[in-house]
Amino acid sequence: MKIIIVGATGTIGKHVAGALEKDHEIIRVGLKSGDIQTDITSPDAIENLFRQTGPFDALICTAGDAYFGPWKTMTDKEFRLGIDSKLMGQINLVLIGQKYIRPKGSFTLTSGVLTNDPVLGGANPAAANGAIEAFVRSAAIELENGVRINAVSPTVVEESPKYFSFFPGHIPVTMKQVIYGYLKSVTGAGTGQVIEVL
Amino acid sequence: MKIIIVGATGTIGKHVAGALEKDHEIIRVGLKSGDIQTDITSPDAIENLFRQTGPFDALICTAGDAYFGPWKTMTDKEFRLGIDSKLMGQINLVLIGQKYIRPKGSFTLTSGVLTNDPVLGGANPAAANGAIEAFVRSAAIELENGVRINAVSPTVVEESPKYFSFFPGHIPVTMKQVIYGYLKSVTGAGTGQVIEVL
Repeated sequence: MKIIIVGATGTIGKHVAGALEKDHEIIRVGLKSGDIQTDITSPDAIENLFRQTGPFDALICTAGDAYFGPWKTMTDKEFRLGIDSKLMGQINLVLIGQKYIRPKGSFTLTSGVLTNDPVLGGANPAAANGAIEAFVRSAAIELENGVRINAVSPTVVEESPKYFSFFPGHIPVTMKQVIYGYLKSVTGAGTGQVIEVL
Repeated sequence: MKIIIVGATGTIGKHVAGALEKDHEIIRVGLKSGDIQTDITSPDAIENLFRQTGPFDALICTAGDAYFGPWKTMTDKEFRLGIDSKLMGQINLVLIGQKYIRPKGSFTLTSGVLTNDPVLGGANPAAANGAIEAFVRSAAIELENGVRINAVSPTVVEESPKYFSFFPGHIPVTMKQVIYGYLKSVTGAGTGQVIEVL
């Protein structure tokens, strides 16, 4: 398969790319690195990405920023970080990418544990995650030609110790567990699923 | 209690206002009607609303637009309708309103059945709903002084027959059922809940 990985040089993305590259053609996409550079907060940049990749079989997005910070002073401006990047960035990859994806292809987005299990400071990524998960269930009944869509929802990952203190009591998952979540979406047959990695 | 109802002249809001006005002081807020006019897509307008209302005990939002339309041609621009109105409009009412709400007060937002049970054409309201529900769970662990927050999530309502065809097989709920959802949030003790009216 020809697989586009957006966020392919990030903590999770590089491992997912490594796990798939033996058997598949991987196009690594990053903000400032990878085979192609794209800013997912720009619909024009996303359209330009797909013009360069051409038709593809799978898209995985492990990219998307959100604001993590104190609740009492949180403003619209800070909240828009997650809205424009993790939420609309991923949704636009699908709305635009549906014109380029091959029959029986798949989209795999990334949400996260905060949808249902919040932590202090995380209202923005939580809202973005909740939107992505509901979007995936909606898109699954819309996409035609056997195209599938799922979200992988991991908790904090073993390789990101700097986040541990923000997730008290969350048992970090291994990168191997996280990779298996993405493999399940891309190489499995499910659609409209939120694949929790907890 | 002093209760602000944003969307108080809409289909649901007018009935919720009617059910609460016997026992409480109601401030009706609408885009172009009611006691105070506010555009919830503008944080400045929301700040101005609370400057006019002053301290309050409960805020109910039954307002918030989203885009309902064909999937294949859906763009970022159309999707932003639900992002700016139903999603960020309601979230900004809380982020800004927390400075004005009295101890033990409550926020009640509106999501909807599409979060978990999608229909064709409804990806935008579904995403907005999913974000609101995750936000409510996050905000519930952040709000201090006993302030509570919930979302009411109704399916299609008996009084809106024009929407029936978009919700095939959904059994319309009565307005009385919907009102009880809002009453549960405002006069009950729960927080971080999604009160489904199905």
